[in-house]
Amino acid sequence: MLWSGAVKENPVLIVGSLAFDDLEMPSGTFNDVIGGAATYSSIATSLLAPVRLVGVLGNDFPEAMLDDLRKRGVDTAGVERAQGKTFRWRGRYSDDLSSRTTLDTQLNVFADFRPKIPKTFKSSPYVLLGNIHPALQLEVLAQVDKPKLVAADTMNFWITGEPKLLGEVLSKINLLVINDEEARQLTGIHNLVKAAADIRKRGPSRLIVKRGEHGALYFDDGGAFFAPAYLLEDVVDPTGAGDSFAGGLLGYAARVDDLGPHAMRRAMYFGCALGSFCVEGIGPRRLQDVTPADLNKRMHAFTALVETGGALTVPE
Amino acid sequence: MLWSGAVKENPVLIVGSLAFDDLEMPSGTFNDVIGGAATYSSIATSLLAPVRLVGVLGNDFPEAMLDDLRKRGVDTAGVERAQGKTFRWRGRYSDDLSSRTTLDTQLNVFADFRPKIPKTFKSSPYVLLGNIHPALQLEVLAQVDKPKLVAADTMNFWITGEPKLLGEVLSKINLLVINDEEARQLTGIHNLVKAAADIRKRGPSRLIVKRGEHGALYFDDGGAFFAPAYLLEDVVDPTGAGDSFAGGLLGYAARVDDLGPHAMRRAMYFGCALGSFCVEGIGPRRLQDVTPADLNKRMHAFTALVETGGALTVPE
Repeated sequence: MLWSGAVKENPVLIVGSLAFDDLEMPSGTFNDVIGGAATYSSIATSLLAPVRLVGVLGNDFPEAMLDDLRKRGVDTAGVERAQGKTFRWRGRYSDDLSSRTTLDTQLNVFADFRPKIPKTFKSSPYVLLGNIHPALQLEVLAQVDKPKLVAADTMNFWITGEPKLLGEVLSKINLLVINDEEARQLTGIHNLVKAAADIRKRGPSRLIVKRGEHGALYFDDGGAFFAPAYLLEDVVDPTGAGDSFAGGLLGYAARVDDLGPHAMRRAMYFGCALGSFCVEGIGPRRLQDVTPADLNKRMHAFTALVETGGALTVPE
Repeated sequence: MLWSGAVKENPVLIVGSLAFDDLEMPSGTFNDVIGGAATYSSIATSLLAPVRLVGVLGNDFPEAMLDDLRKRGVDTAGVERAQGKTFRWRGRYSDDLSSRTTLDTQLNVFADFRPKIPKTFKSSPYVLLGNIHPALQLEVLAQVDKPKLVAADTMNFWITGEPKLLGEVLSKINLLVINDEEARQLTGIHNLVKAAADIRKRGPSRLIVKRGEHGALYFDDGGAFFAPAYLLEDVVDPTGAGDSFAGGLLGYAARVDDLGPHAMRRAMYFGCALGSFCVEGIGPRRLQDVTPADLNKRMHAFTALVETGGALTVPE
């Protein structure tokens, strides 16, 4: 299962958390589920491009999971195993899975994490900075050589707690990937078109605003673009969907090695497709099972969901 | 301004409320705004096809508004002017316009409304039944001759209050147009794909589930389709957006006289486009100003919002 065996070029450097999640779902509680933004993103990206992973885990993280990542083309040379326990998050989802509450966060070995980018990773053309402290995101950027695209995630905690450092991150990245609430919080602007314009002035020429089950918006010099979420009959666990989205998006961009307006708009659909697989199982289980054939099949179904079979012009 | 002067075929029969709305918006209060589902739908449809309007209004409804409707190709032969006051609705919107509360409803002349379909309207090939009592919707259906498409709206009030009559309506229509909450309430099923399948078993082979600013879903024998809401910088007043959507959709279907899967999917975009104009002004003001050129321009911009410039397949 060398997913990207044929593609040696354009690896994606992914820096972020590897974790255990304890998930209190309407369907029951699932403890010790493998999680972490970098885990989800890596699995998603690996379906389309080689991955170089940087993160930290404790003694308790199963080597089998790392083996699985390596089998799918993830270079784990940047994954550090520290003495102690792996980062752990416990959350509870609402009955309709549309919202969640953090019950507990244990940083554990993540508390002292300082990303060290292996020499062989420094020239990675595509970089995905997971949702970590902006100071650490800046440390990563100081260690890499002029990537073609640097995408970064962030969250409300850094928006309110580290606005200055986050501002510095924004000035140095090409693509910010956040959700609608975060876009509004970051700018103080409710309307997303106006909020997007405000954010793009701060540095990233490209912006993605994720809206969960309502899809995602992309903004670049060519204007706004919208991609819907894939329509599912059974949503099991939204954990990691946003990270899988970012991973799929970067994976496609790297695979085609094209940052043009159309390629990035298609990349949005690949992000949404990977997010849709993610939510079909508890943790990354379903995502891990996805084959390239599954992805092709989903893209086919996705096309049917949006295909109008002709131009949207007023008939004569 | 004979919008549909060139198109004599395929008029759309629209039956529903004509009203005054008192709107408490974050930007201020607007009293005596011309409203009513049939008003919004008629204006929207008239951009694409001739309209035949059936409804009731009181002594206080301005003749100038009816003149405006007639100028745009709306046949008002089915509009009855009764002694008394026009139907009135008063509502208050939330700060972000995402929700509203009904403060007052005065049925007035609408209380005794019994739709009488003029002889010349009976053979209308397209019929839009606005959100009125299901008994009245059935009375309309008893008076028309085998339309090609009957679309109907309804609401929570009838879903809980008149389930039997509503069930009879469902068994006699081709297309139900409701919002996501109503679809869930009607079926008791949260997942919209499953709810849609349940509703389609009850009669209408076609179903639209409106999701406000998050677009709309369409279900038919060909599967599911999604059209996003057009992205706006300034949303002023969502009143009538759903009715404008339904009007635009029916207008396009009638204009092309095609109920095939692709035409209906394009019709979804025309519905969304008309809805997007509607919310740009208080009441139907903006919608009334829309020219065919404006509509063409919006469809062009809408295309840019969703265009991927190529197939969504995994690159080799």
